[in-house]
Amino acid sequence: MLLDHIVYSQQFTVPKLMELFERTEAMKKIVKRGGTKDYESKIMATLFYAPSTRTRFSFESAMFRLGGKVLSTENAKEFSSEIEGERLEDTIRMLSNYCDVIVLRHSEEGGAGRASKVSPVPIINAGDGSGGQHPTQALLDLYTINYECKTLDGLSVAFVGALDKGRTVRSLAYLLSKFDRVKLYFIAPDELQINKDILDHLDERGVSYELLSTSEKIISKVDVVYQTRIDKERLKKKNENLSRFNIDYNVLQSMKKKSIIMHPLPRSVEITPDVDSDPRAAYFRQTENGLYVRMALLTMLFDK
Amino acid sequence: MLLDHIVYSQQFTVPKLMELFERTEAMKKIVKRGGTKDYESKIMATLFYAPSTRTRFSFESAMFRLGGKVLSTENAKEFSSEIEGERLEDTIRMLSNYCDVIVLRHSEEGGAGRASKVSPVPIINAGDGSGGQHPTQALLDLYTINYECKTLDGLSVAFVGALDKGRTVRSLAYLLSKFDRVKLYFIAPDELQINKDILDHLDERGVSYELLSTSEKIISKVDVVYQTRIDKERLKKKNENLSRFNIDYNVLQSMKKKSIIMHPLPRSVEITPDVDSDPRAAYFRQTENGLYVRMALLTMLFDK
Amino acid sequence: MLLDHIVYSQQFTVPKLMELFERTEAMKKIVKRGGTKDYESKIMATLFYAPSTRTRFSFESAMFRLGGKVLSTENAKEFSSEIEGERLEDTIRMLSNYCDVIVLRHSEEGGAGRASKVSPVPIINAGDGSGGQHPTQALLDLYTINYECKTLDGLSVAFVGALDKGRTVRSLAYLLSKFDRVKLYFIAPDELQINKDILDHLDERGVSYELLSTSEKIISKVDVVYQTRIDKERLKKKNENLSRFNIDYNVLQSMKKKSIIMHPLPRSVEITPDVDSDPRAAYFRQTENGLYVRMALLTMLFDK
Repeated sequence: MLLDHIVYSQQFTVPKLMELFERTEAMKKIVKRGGTKDYESKIMATLFYAPSTRTRFSFESAMFRLGGKVLSTENAKEFSSEIEGERLEDTIRMLSNYCDVIVLRHSEEGGAGRASKVSPVPIINAGDGSGGQHPTQALLDLYTINYECKTLDGLSVAFVGALDKGRTVRSLAYLLSKFDRVKLYFIAPDELQINKDILDHLDERGVSYELLSTSEKIISKVDVVYQTRIDKERLKKKNENLSRFNIDYNVLQSMKKKSIIMHPLPRSVEITPDVDSDPRAAYFRQTENGLYVRMALLTMLFDK
Repeated sequence: MLLDHIVYSQQFTVPKLMELFERTEAMKKIVKRGGTKDYESKIMATLFYAPSTRTRFSFESAMFRLGGKVLSTENAKEFSSEIEGERLEDTIRMLSNYCDVIVLRHSEEGGAGRASKVSPVPIINAGDGSGGQHPTQALLDLYTINYECKTLDGLSVAFVGALDKGRTVRSLAYLLSKFDRVKLYFIAPDELQINKDILDHLDERGVSYELLSTSEKIISKVDVVYQTRIDKERLKKKNENLSRFNIDYNVLQSMKKKSIIMHPLPRSVEITPDVDSDPRAAYFRQTENGLYVRMALLTMLFDK
Repeated sequence: MLLDHIVYSQQFTVPKLMELFERTEAMKKIVKRGGTKDYESKIMATLFYAPSTRTRFSFESAMFRLGGKVLSTENAKEFSSEIEGERLEDTIRMLSNYCDVIVLRHSEEGGAGRASKVSPVPIINAGDGSGGQHPTQALLDLYTINYECKTLDGLSVAFVGALDKGRTVRSLAYLLSKFDRVKLYFIAPDELQINKDILDHLDERGVSYELLSTSEKIISKVDVVYQTRIDKERLKKKNENLSRFNIDYNVLQSMKKKSIIMHPLPRSVEITPDVDSDPRAAYFRQTENGLYVRMALLTMLFDK
């Protein structure tokens, strides 16, 4: 087995990432010709303690294109409500009898790690707590950057939005730190800036970065803008004008010709629809890549 | 492709309807011998913003009998609740990466039309708003009438119930207006009568019709009675006796030997269970036809 | 067809039980080699009026390992909420058009029986009301006892917990009464003891039993302990210490070397986690058996 479980993005070494990217290319071809039946005996269970139809659909479609079957729930709270505080470990042991891989979205940080300790079948972490990990999102983001920019070395990447709780941004920053001469910009309202643990990690790895409170000056210089939402409720001034973080048609004009705009979706006002038709708008291609990357990850768990 | 999207019932010309009916007959045979695997590489997504287990099951069973796979949600509100007012267009673009056809039940009139404008995969409208369309229901109703009565020309059809908001009745009336010498009766409490837009359309097509406030006199003369529910809450006199709209064993005795009773189901008091065993009770055959008609529609979207 | 419907556990004669156990062994082998495609044209619908993700997953996995497809809902209340009091009979007739077997969890005692009277496809009762039946659970429990103890004759079995509403315990007691020289112990707080109808049945069959209010004296003598939860809310003294009903590492030491501990899961405090690694802890093997037994039952409904 190439992987036992997929719990956190740091577990991926650069060679494993390259293996993943190669398999992802193979998956694109498989989907183009209508999928495969190679994994038709496999059953995937999606165990979501909080609904996330988007993530669930992406995984389920990946499994279907591989020929497999899916046990699906967005109702997993019922497992524990039925009895106050059933241990996640018991649920996993039970469920592992019924499937070959478990995609778990848990409400608590560390949930996927706990599950992986007792599970005889592979666990895929599809999000565990707001401060936790969502490694498959980070992997598809990394794949998208590599595919669109043809490299991961020497890139300048701006992360924009509510970065303190940005699970996606945090995981992606970790992964990017594995590559050479990367320069990261963290652009957020002061009170929502990226947390110190990430910066400490970047310092340790010798990655250069800058903290900014507006996109304006830097947006024309970067290769990648990674936009995320800002929840106004969490701002001190709830009525603060946040347009300095947004990308519209005018901002787009100032960007490099070869740059790309990414977004984990769904979006709110931070990217206006008039940006969608520009080739630099990579966010819909990014969701498409989610399918291929997740297929590739599943094969890395299934193949001996 | 024989069809690009299925958005409203008026898009079906008479030749397309005949093609549909022929394919429906073929589907009956396919189901009888256990389904086909011809479409096993296809994925259908059901995107329901309001749950409708009945309609969903009918589509999902159709896809399974064709050999295909299903991404399923009755929880689609979560797509937009996650972020206040995500645009349907974004959801559709994202989802279209994961499937080959989208069955959409949207809460707003025109939702399916909007979806079809941005979707690279076919959209099937499974209901958009109470004043909107539900074309596959109308098509299966039309198929049922044609199958049971061996013709669509020269029929007299009585629609009974709360007709003003009767999406099913409205769409079926449109479709029937395409055929010759049809006579329609709209039978409803005055305040719940069919809306003027339908009558204007019938006038334009030269279709003869009558508005009535009781079934009594006409029930013995028609070829088809299409029963629907009446929501008493919407009546001026909430305690009004509505038995003059109902069909029970006695009313049944007065009906023509060759007539049929239809109902989109679920039913309440408007057809009593003692009618069920009479061969004129066509409503369970009607739901069965839903399977074959939806299979046929899917093949018309998939086949080149 | 070996079975028409699976409605209550009493319908299984000893020869039918033996047939089931043989088929269950065959299913184990089938799962080990990755499942079969023999039933790939079959569709199972799960119609759950109350969610039970555990039971649903077990059935759905069983169907998948047989190669079949699944229509799934945990939202079946919507069928009847759409219209106050739609008759279960109508829902079943409609649904039977879309599938080859219906797994029904209904809220009212006798629901599965009513469904079986009108359904042209087999009905499997997956629980009907708290005083009702859940026969597939009782069958997998019986299989587990037979498999672990190598016999069903001459066994002493202790049932522990809230036995008055213990659907599982009630059904299993019925099944055990078919075998020779069985001795049953019912161990519960007085107000939650097993109901008289079961005891009357045991008297009729000449089965010997004892009612106890603590596990202590008997636990070292029995072959099987069947633990269930006690809902403290239903006790007269809500703060009563219930540890005399629990199994922990110390209690375990006093048990027979060849005995087993069972539990329908999920568990609360009545079995502590330090018991899990002992070979006598059979409850996770019991849930695994649920898969094989349900596969076997499905084949008994499908095979002519």
